[in-house]
Amino acid sequence: MINRLISKIRQTNAPIVVGLDPMMKFVPEYIKKNAFKEHGETLEGAAEAIWQYNKGIVDAIYDLVPAVKPQVAMYEQFGIPGMIAFKKTVDYCKEKGLVVIGDIKRGDIGSTSEAYAVGHLGKVQVGSNSFAGFDEDFVTVNPYLGSDGVKPFTKICAEEKKGIFVLVKTSNPSSGEFQDRLVDGKPLYELVGEQVAAWGAECMPDEGDYSYVGAVVGATYPEQGRLLRKVMPKTFILVPGYGAQGGKGADLVHFFNEDGLGAIINSSRGIIAAYQQEQYAAYGETGYADASRAAVIAMQEDIAQALNNR
Amino acid sequence: MINRLISKIRQTNAPIVVGLDPMMKFVPEYIKKNAFKEHGETLEGAAEAIWQYNKGIVDAIYDLVPAVKPQVAMYEQFGIPGMIAFKKTVDYCKEKGLVVIGDIKRGDIGSTSEAYAVGHLGKVQVGSNSFAGFDEDFVTVNPYLGSDGVKPFTKICAEEKKGIFVLVKTSNPSSGEFQDRLVDGKPLYELVGEQVAAWGAECMPDEGDYSYVGAVVGATYPEQGRLLRKVMPKTFILVPGYGAQGGKGADLVHFFNEDGLGAIINSSRGIIAAYQQEQYAAYGETGYADASRAAVIAMQEDIAQALNNR
Repeated sequence: MINRLISKIRQTNAPIVVGLDPMMKFVPEYIKKNAFKEHGETLEGAAEAIWQYNKGIVDAIYDLVPAVKPQVAMYEQFGIPGMIAFKKTVDYCKEKGLVVIGDIKRGDIGSTSEAYAVGHLGKVQVGSNSFAGFDEDFVTVNPYLGSDGVKPFTKICAEEKKGIFVLVKTSNPSSGEFQDRLVDGKPLYELVGEQVAAWGAECMPDEGDYSYVGAVVGATYPEQGRLLRKVMPKTFILVPGYGAQGGKGADLVHFFNEDGLGAIINSSRGIIAAYQQEQYAAYGETGYADASRAAVIAMQEDIAQALNNR
Repeated sequence: MINRLISKIRQTNAPIVVGLDPMMKFVPEYIKKNAFKEHGETLEGAAEAIWQYNKGIVDAIYDLVPAVKPQVAMYEQFGIPGMIAFKKTVDYCKEKGLVVIGDIKRGDIGSTSEAYAVGHLGKVQVGSNSFAGFDEDFVTVNPYLGSDGVKPFTKICAEEKKGIFVLVKTSNPSSGEFQDRLVDGKPLYELVGEQVAAWGAECMPDEGDYSYVGAVVGATYPEQGRLLRKVMPKTFILVPGYGAQGGKGADLVHFFNEDGLGAIINSSRGIIAAYQQEQYAAYGETGYADASRAAVIAMQEDIAQALNNR
């Protein structure tokens, strides 16, 4: 799957992933109205609204980008109907040929981590049958519990040729509270990065330069990105924080390797709620999907230019 | 909710939480057979089997313990039908008067963490209505992202008078990989513990000695438990790792405060799969729930004795 991601990045010339994090305040009124007409102002109504909203965006952008990243929390908040909308979104994006990164940030130990890995990347056994529960291509994983938490995921990755992105240095302002603390003179995120490189070395595809084990490093920390790029040369880096969180194309060049690969930049509300920004206001509510397409094109150009200028 | 948990611990004289982590290999054959007869060997069949299995255990133990802790991964692995079984289990346990700790180990940033908090502890707004998605009483939270990740949970806790348990020192063998690393001469888990105490100080109920912000510290690390007990005097500690993972009653006394409170000990497979242990084999498959009841009573005695002898 890492090689499929790379080939799609080359094909689209867009190392971009669109974060499908549908908050109700992003969903155009007319979509909510239709969904509530059918289902009432219920969890089912909300789930239908976010699904229709997602579908519009995916239809408008699927040919421009290699991947999407649905944030499961935004679906999970609507309970079971929300989880059904999550699954529908994952399935639809895969139908459209997109690589799907489930932003689930799970992490536990032993058989529990294995259950998450099985549920999101693998297949669960029921009697003599097996089923994929959520069936993403990649998921994000929290490393705080150490190797016991991560290895059940890498095992399933190797079996299914799928991948994970392990949180190393997150994009939020307080990420330094623990991640930046010095351990033997090195920040904790560097230690986690070294471990990610080690987990990845045991989890390489048959061909290609990048392992099944990626990392998450926030766009808001470009200097840390530069360092971590060196610490984890064979690790694909998922970079959130572009756009709304303040990251710009020029900050991102050091997340990439010399081969122009090695990083994929996420933007969520900057794309999916583009129509709510002044710059794209002319599209209006009903043009929200076209506004998203325009925002993807602008982002693609910003990153391509930054990479050309480095 | 922390005060309700404490009053139920006093009433049952059992600082015990039963982990409802149903693996298919724990579920008696006759339950699986019935479920598969109705639903086939499908995700729905598996979900029905774990729900029936849980119901039997809950019916057998609900009067003995204050709380249960369903591990969401064990349900999530069965996709949507699994999540429905999770929700059914949560609802049923609450009907039976049990405090429900959702072992979800979620953690993200800002609005995303808020979505998890809303979905599991709070209510989500849909138009002019609001709905509780999963509606646990407590959940477990991963601290790696720092205050930005935890504060959205404590905000909802204060509003809903619910609670969280933040991972501080986990019970697994490799928990030390990051958690034990020294930062300014102190292990990282101690730093996290100090932060838990600080988050908790801002999140106290109107009455009572314990905050809405608890901690997870593994039974397998009694010395760390002793230290963390002092670092976080007003923090309730959820202690996994009893039984199957190797923790014993005598190891646990230092997790408790002088008032005999401050900790709640989890056992999962030691209780729910008791019938598969030699000691309880006489109960047989059909007596699995009674075996669970016997295992709870034995655990209650082991802990009471250890607390008396300290």
